[in-house]
Amino acid sequence: VTDLLPKRADAERNRKKILAAAAELFANSEGEVSMAEVARLADVGMATLYRNFPGRMDLLEALFTDEVDTICESASAASGESPGALLSSWLHRFHGFSMSKRRVALEILKHTDTNDPLFGGSRSKVLSVGRPMLNAAQKAGEIREDLVLEQVLDMVVAIATINGPPAYVEPILDAAIDGLRVCSNPDV
Amino acid sequence: VTDLLPKRADAERNRKKILAAAAELFANSEGEVSMAEVARLADVGMATLYRNFPGRMDLLEALFTDEVDTICESASAASGESPGALLSSWLHRFHGFSMSKRRVALEILKHTDTNDPLFGGSRSKVLSVGRPMLNAAQKAGEIREDLVLEQVLDMVVAIATINGPPAYVEPILDAAIDGLRVCSNPDV
Repeated sequence: VTDLLPKRADAERNRKKILAAAAELFANSEGEVSMAEVARLADVGMATLYRNFPGRMDLLEALFTDEVDTICESASAASGESPGALLSSWLHRFHGFSMSKRRVALEILKHTDTNDPLFGGSRSKVLSVGRPMLNAAQKAGEIREDLVLEQVLDMVVAIATINGPPAYVEPILDAAIDGLRVCSNPDV
Repeated sequence: VTDLLPKRADAERNRKKILAAAAELFANSEGEVSMAEVARLADVGMATLYRNFPGRMDLLEALFTDEVDTICESASAASGESPGALLSSWLHRFHGFSMSKRRVALEILKHTDTNDPLFGGSRSKVLSVGRPMLNAAQKAGEIREDLVLEQVLDMVVAIATINGPPAYVEPILDAAIDGLRVCSNPDV
């Protein structure tokens, strides 16, 4: 029993190293990401990689779930600002997530379809995290009330599909998110 | 020579009837639009239809070009408002165009690709029409200056790809276009 705990900690550490390596490769490399590349960057052997993720799809799905969890956790991490500023900073983070998630999601979609419970589950997770933030910002009178969270997220996701480097896409996102704010010169 | 003019007018009228029928069918029907349906709605014979548009692609391309011309002409038709309001109303019209154009463009894309000069040509036509409107609205201090027209149009086109009925998508577009305005409470 005594040497079981270090082994579990090792296994957990390896799993995290593999996911971090895969996330980095997906974010930065142009072509296909191979299992061998993931193992090399994570500095683990192929046996360890395949013990954690028997197939490429297992790795992709874990990566996707992991990123959804990160974006959900980042909602509770932000604090100390106004409800509107909080929502806006979370939406910017959600956009970054949509950009990196997109490649992983596209790879998963090659083998499955959008009705996969993986996608539905992640959407409802994100919605339940974002809903109280939007409600608070609307109640504070900072954010317009004619949109529900689904529309706000669809807007951010749509902008994440625009082709171009971040310097091109980010000002578009800034403008669209600014459009959610209640503006005091509405007659312009 | 005397009966040549009425014939030309007839031909022009038929062409317009066919394009209007095709536009209506593309905007409203769910499935594939057949040449026979177009002829029926336009109230012309199949011979007349094929004399005007020898193939389905000829009809689609004419439809696309026609819609691009309409959106370009609508820029000069709008007038009498502030430059910012003018730009905003044109962008709303451009959105409607993107929605209907999308199906036609997707059908064309089945047979060709995005490098088709048809698309490049339509983009530069729209850009040259929209540019002076954006410049005027930015000079008037109504519209933010950190976006160029390409970014503004990409934003509108991205929003046109969101799935949902107009009652769902239009408030998203309203918010995003509002975000282009210079807001007097920027610290929210």
